Amino acid sequence: MRVNEKDYRTICLDKKNKYVSIIDQTQLPHKFVIEKLEHPNDFVRAIKDMHVRGAGLIGVTAAYGMYIASLKAPEENFDVYMKSIAQELKSTRPTAVNLAWAVDQQLEEIEKYNFIDSARNALLERANKICEEEVNSCKKIGINGLELITNLSEKKCKKEVNILTHCNAGWLAFVDYGSALSPIYLANKSGIDVHVWVDMTSPWNQGAKLTAWELQQEKVPYTIISDNTGGHLMQKRLVDMVIVGADRVTKKGDVVNKIGTYLKALSAKDNNIPFYVAFPSSTFDWKIENSNYIQIEKRSGEEVKYTQGIDEKGKITRVLLTPKESNALNYAFDITPARLITKLITEKGVFNANKKDILKIYPEHKND
Amino acid sequence: MRVNEKDYRTICLDKKNKYVSIIDQTQLPHKFVIEKLEHPNDFVRAIKDMHVRGAGLIGVTAAYGMYIASLKAPEENFDVYMKSIAQELKSTRPTAVNLAWAVDQQLEEIEKYNFIDSARNALLERANKICEEEVNSCKKIGINGLELITNLSEKKCKKEVNILTHCNAGWLAFVDYGSALSPIYLANKSGIDVHVWVDMTSPWNQGAKLTAWELQQEKVPYTIISDNTGGHLMQKRLVDMVIVGADRVTKKGDVVNKIGTYLKALSAKDNNIPFYVAFPSSTFDWKIENSNYIQIEKRSGEEVKYTQGIDEKGKITRVLLTPKESNALNYAFDITPARLITKLITEKGVFNANKKDILKIYPEHKND
Repeated sequence: MRVNEKDYRTICLDKKNKYVSIIDQTQLPHKFVIEKLEHPNDFVRAIKDMHVRGAGLIGVTAAYGMYIASLKAPEENFDVYMKSIAQELKSTRPTAVNLAWAVDQQLEEIEKYNFIDSARNALLERANKICEEEVNSCKKIGINGLELITNLSEKKCKKEVNILTHCNAGWLAFVDYGSALSPIYLANKSGIDVHVWVDMTSPWNQGAKLTAWELQQEKVPYTIISDNTGGHLMQKRLVDMVIVGADRVTKKGDVVNKIGTYLKALSAKDNNIPFYVAFPSSTFDWKIENSNYIQIEKRSGEEVKYTQGIDEKGKITRVLLTPKESNALNYAFDITPARLITKLITEKGVFNANKKDILKIYPEHKND
Repeated sequence: MRVNEKDYRTICLDKKNKYVSIIDQTQLPHKFVIEKLEHPNDFVRAIKDMHVRGAGLIGVTAAYGMYIASLKAPEENFDVYMKSIAQELKSTRPTAVNLAWAVDQQLEEIEKYNFIDSARNALLERANKICEEEVNSCKKIGINGLELITNLSEKKCKKEVNILTHCNAGWLAFVDYGSALSPIYLANKSGIDVHVWVDMTSPWNQGAKLTAWELQQEKVPYTIISDNTGGHLMQKRLVDMVIVGADRVTKKGDVVNKIGTYLKALSAKDNNIPFYVAFPSSTFDWKIENSNYIQIEKRSGEEVKYTQGIDEKGKITRVLLTPKESNALNYAFDITPARLITKLITEKGVFNANKKDILKIYPEHKND
């Protein structure tokens, strides 16, 4: 997608020089900084400290991390080394399923080969494949979701369609296009009159920082609101639809997504506003039936107590908001039960959030 | 209540020197600064810029503002001058009814007297009365609400009672004790094991700044959470009850309170957790039946885009969170429909949020 009128992806392998370039998302929207990841630890740290974040992107980053690790791995201890890196990568962010999924795919590649060079090649190919599949999935999610926006626009006699989104499920959360924002970008390009309500998404403010920045770069009209505001806007009929992303989706259609999603789903339901969840199929967790068993990542309370922005001199500065001695709790995700979701949107189509309808689209997972 | 082990009120008239002292709440929790209001414009500015805030406190501040204004009013144009100050005070914050209520009470006093000195005395007495009545109401709200907490504590075999609150409805929002926090202070003093989940309450962060500071000073255990978190905690059964304040309550029991209250009420309902609203009777608006007609204050979008805290050197600093060009919308309140409220708590008792039950407690307002 566009940054200062130029096309970018969030992640890019330099095959010749054997490093990966990412956008350091902790510095957005204030500074656009490209960061090099050269060592396996760079990948672990980049995911953990959220230089890259978003279900899709951390998966792809980990996949490339496994490839780069294979270049550094000692030949005599290749398997042990790779398994330990895999474990480290998986433990950085426990909730989004794409991360574990991508690392497991890479471990399967390693299993297949007896020669290290073949394994390295396979890791590279698989990482590229995961990356390209993700891009294609996001593109298709856009096409599938566009229909919903088009219909609403027709119903409103082409008056402005107001879409609320929570957190960032744009291209910054993936490699390109994004999930929740992909249909919005397409709608905007197709000349549909769209406007996005951007939830700030405290404490990390992914909405205020990343979604706002993305939409600004792509010239999509948007307005930032505090996380407290969406319900009131829905009561006032100022929201036509909600589209969010997902970090993990169960077979029954329960959605794990950024903390606060559940509250917006409740209020959409209370006001009879459609609530859509957009994600690539890799976000399904086919193994867990009961969403209560999913581990919800608890991050440092410091992320609640402190926030980062630029001061009047333009310097990126961290400020303490609360009394210094305060305790703070920082769950990163919550679970939106399927009963609150109007439709799920994946690259495979638009369908209801229940086991029967999900398995109709994904019959190969019937017995998982 | 306690500040560094000493007793304070949020507002105090210096009768001899004819000024009013307030706590500048924009500097909390980082600095405890007492500010003098000497001229009518100081009162207008203090309310508008939220040096004082909270339904109760802005009412009392405006009442004293009218008294101080009467000392500065030109004798030849006394009535016109006072009416214009009254108008200015009322227009600072349109939603909380206590402000208009207090100013109207003062205008009624002026009507009663032909001599300016008598009017001045009456304004002083009325301001003191409003102030003392508020303190007494808040004290009684504490006693009435305590019973609910005690019952819950008994039901939980005296295990920790977890209470979620939104924004600040503590003593800083009134003169002393507070509304939502008053029962909590009393419970804590009575040896009940209480713990408070404090919603940050962005964008102004009254929870993270003021409620946290109050609870810290009074040694009540608390944990700050982002506004997105309460729903998830309710799903996990980590919240036993919700108590919030109110800025305006209709005869039917609809509650106007800090933006985001509605979302917490929805999630309390969805999880079958009691949701209480505590406020002095002066918060009732007996004139409006339909809460949709209540003007919801829209504050500057800059309050969403920027936030204030202390930097690493301890200096109070404002930082920009979003892209500089972003639009932001900042509604200060929302409306929680009566159907989501378990009980209302006032100084008169604990009762259901519906017209019949409200008018049973307030029969004198039957024909308003």
